[in-house]
Amino acid sequence: MKADEIEIIEAGQAARILWSDGQRSRFHALWLRDNALDPKTRSAGNGQRLITVLDIPPATLIGSAAPTASGDIAVSFVPGGHETVFPAAWLHERIYDREQPREAGWLADAVEPWDSALKGGVPSASYSLLRQDRPALGAWLAAVRRFGFAVLTEVPTTSGSLCDVAGLFGYVRETNYGRWFEVRAEVNPNNLAYTNLGLQAHTDNPYRDPVPTLQLLSCLENSVEGGDSIVVDGFAVARRLRREDPHGFELLTRHPVRFEYAGSSGVCLRAKRPFIELGPDGEMIAIRFNNRSAAPFVDVPYADMPAFYAAYRRFAEILEDPAMEVTFKLKPGELFIVDNTRVMHARKAFSGTGKRWLQGCYADKDGLLSTLAAIEAESVREAAE
Amino acid sequence: MKADEIEIIEAGQAARILWSDGQRSRFHALWLRDNALDPKTRSAGNGQRLITVLDIPPATLIGSAAPTASGDIAVSFVPGGHETVFPAAWLHERIYDREQPREAGWLADAVEPWDSALKGGVPSASYSLLRQDRPALGAWLAAVRRFGFAVLTEVPTTSGSLCDVAGLFGYVRETNYGRWFEVRAEVNPNNLAYTNLGLQAHTDNPYRDPVPTLQLLSCLENSVEGGDSIVVDGFAVARRLRREDPHGFELLTRHPVRFEYAGSSGVCLRAKRPFIELGPDGEMIAIRFNNRSAAPFVDVPYADMPAFYAAYRRFAEILEDPAMEVTFKLKPGELFIVDNTRVMHARKAFSGTGKRWLQGCYADKDGLLSTLAAIEAESVREAAE
Repeated sequence: MKADEIEIIEAGQAARILWSDGQRSRFHALWLRDNALDPKTRSAGNGQRLITVLDIPPATLIGSAAPTASGDIAVSFVPGGHETVFPAAWLHERIYDREQPREAGWLADAVEPWDSALKGGVPSASYSLLRQDRPALGAWLAAVRRFGFAVLTEVPTTSGSLCDVAGLFGYVRETNYGRWFEVRAEVNPNNLAYTNLGLQAHTDNPYRDPVPTLQLLSCLENSVEGGDSIVVDGFAVARRLRREDPHGFELLTRHPVRFEYAGSSGVCLRAKRPFIELGPDGEMIAIRFNNRSAAPFVDVPYADMPAFYAAYRRFAEILEDPAMEVTFKLKPGELFIVDNTRVMHARKAFSGTGKRWLQGCYADKDGLLSTLAAIEAESVREAAE
Repeated sequence: MKADEIEIIEAGQAARILWSDGQRSRFHALWLRDNALDPKTRSAGNGQRLITVLDIPPATLIGSAAPTASGDIAVSFVPGGHETVFPAAWLHERIYDREQPREAGWLADAVEPWDSALKGGVPSASYSLLRQDRPALGAWLAAVRRFGFAVLTEVPTTSGSLCDVAGLFGYVRETNYGRWFEVRAEVNPNNLAYTNLGLQAHTDNPYRDPVPTLQLLSCLENSVEGGDSIVVDGFAVARRLRREDPHGFELLTRHPVRFEYAGSSGVCLRAKRPFIELGPDGEMIAIRFNNRSAAPFVDVPYADMPAFYAAYRRFAEILEDPAMEVTFKLKPGELFIVDNTRVMHARKAFSGTGKRWLQGCYADKDGLLSTLAAIEAESVREAAE
């Protein structure tokens, strides 16, 4: 992509670029000055911005703007006369003069909603491969970004090895449950997860803010009858609710609910967030759902409560529809990771004979997405060499 | 508080309670059934709910409702005949038949906005006291909840001791910067924090999702000229902007911005969140602000960009107004903690003579607020004994 022509418009408050593909897009003088890439504006070493918005005169205008010989964009500003050049590809990727998505519940391009049809295509890889092959690690992390879960095989069945898996791409989030925790049937459990009861599909720790954004569950032993794992795409459930009952969807996005956990001494965790969280621009960004720790809803107006309960029920009905779920039974040495802000996981009840021993730990998406972006940048650099 | 009378209304879909203070409030049958506290509904051991919303027939009505002899609320439901009793105080605390706050930018009761007038009353305590005195620890944590920051004195000047401070109430959040990190002037710094430049008031790591919700900064040496620490209440800045320019405030809440950090190899962190984040009910829940890592704004429509920049500039002007700031110079053995979703911190430039050595680490509010709630529950129990 190159800039063919540049026209100063709005008395210098903006410029309009004609790109080599025939499209036109406008950029404001203030935006261009703020986002200049030269070493007076951004640190050459670490890329951080050296100026603040207060260093830019509010009356800043474009003094001159023209394509360079290579099709990049040369701009000077008045007052001050600052001169800078934007690479055409860089600026083209940051066009904001466009239709912005505003439909409540839209999804980022990198996210693909799914249902039980994904069953034959569960993303899976071997741990031993991921440890030595950066592109393979990138592909597995990209599946987590796209589908919100993935399976890993050949994980050592030594206690705590799931923390090493988290270390492949990020950092364990330690909580009151420890760096990792045991998931097996206990006498006097402080959490129903530590029984042989079935568990409705849920996100973990919704009573915590910030919620852990990733969960890893690793299998060390599994000789019981039942105890299968189920995953359900919360984004897909929310979008199906939106299709069937737009007002119900809106109620679950508009009113926060409360979650609470106080099952252990010295612990009293509470959070207030909606079941379906949208960004201010309507992007669907998180699901929180957990019947065990949902506290009384006190932020829903009296008049809305019956419709709110009907929407809550419908959400639960959809998530229990087998058409929405992918089921698998973890074998020893297998692990699954879920995006805990999106994919709900469930467990079928299991019998008392045999042994089911899982370990869980939490981590965060910042590290995962950072590692993935770094691997993607490496492969772009290699392709360019 | 006791229930004096209970009337079944709306053909059994709800009940209206007349409380001993003369107030009336309504509760729906579905809400009451869902939130029953009896051992068939909630685990007696850990308090978690044993039923899901799908276990409650959608046509559930109140069969009978009456005050008990002690003024609690006895209810039975049809169909099914489930019987339960709600303690009056418990139910009274969870009244939802009330005016709900809806003004954009309202603050929770536990939060108190502040400006430079707080200077004489900076919350401060001694580490050696907090280690042995639970009520003193509770008071210090309550100050963090109320003001979003606090100072701690008598912290050992041994490297890494700030992690022990985090351990008093929660857990360190490890990141690509480590469990803790050094803040001192470096030759080739990967972050401008590691220079002697002044830093505009900011929240840390806005390019990370989830953002670390607490930051601790501990002083090991400080013999330079300058380098004072400044804290500014982001909630107070946002509310002043709302007062002066309601449309500008709205723009900063309605459009997300981007943050990015890629200063170290293998790290590429990106986030998309608004400068001022409101919950779906309008509660102000977070501030993100950092000139160094703000990426180009690409989610603001072209037509809104000039007004968006004007609001961004005004926000920056307010946060640099000395009337908003509290300044102090950390001495060796002193530490401050900030709620990184609310309070912005800044640093004045410092001279090259002398030495300034700080260490920082991140932690999260879930642990802090849980420990605080547990201490508050202990003191209620002790008062009752």
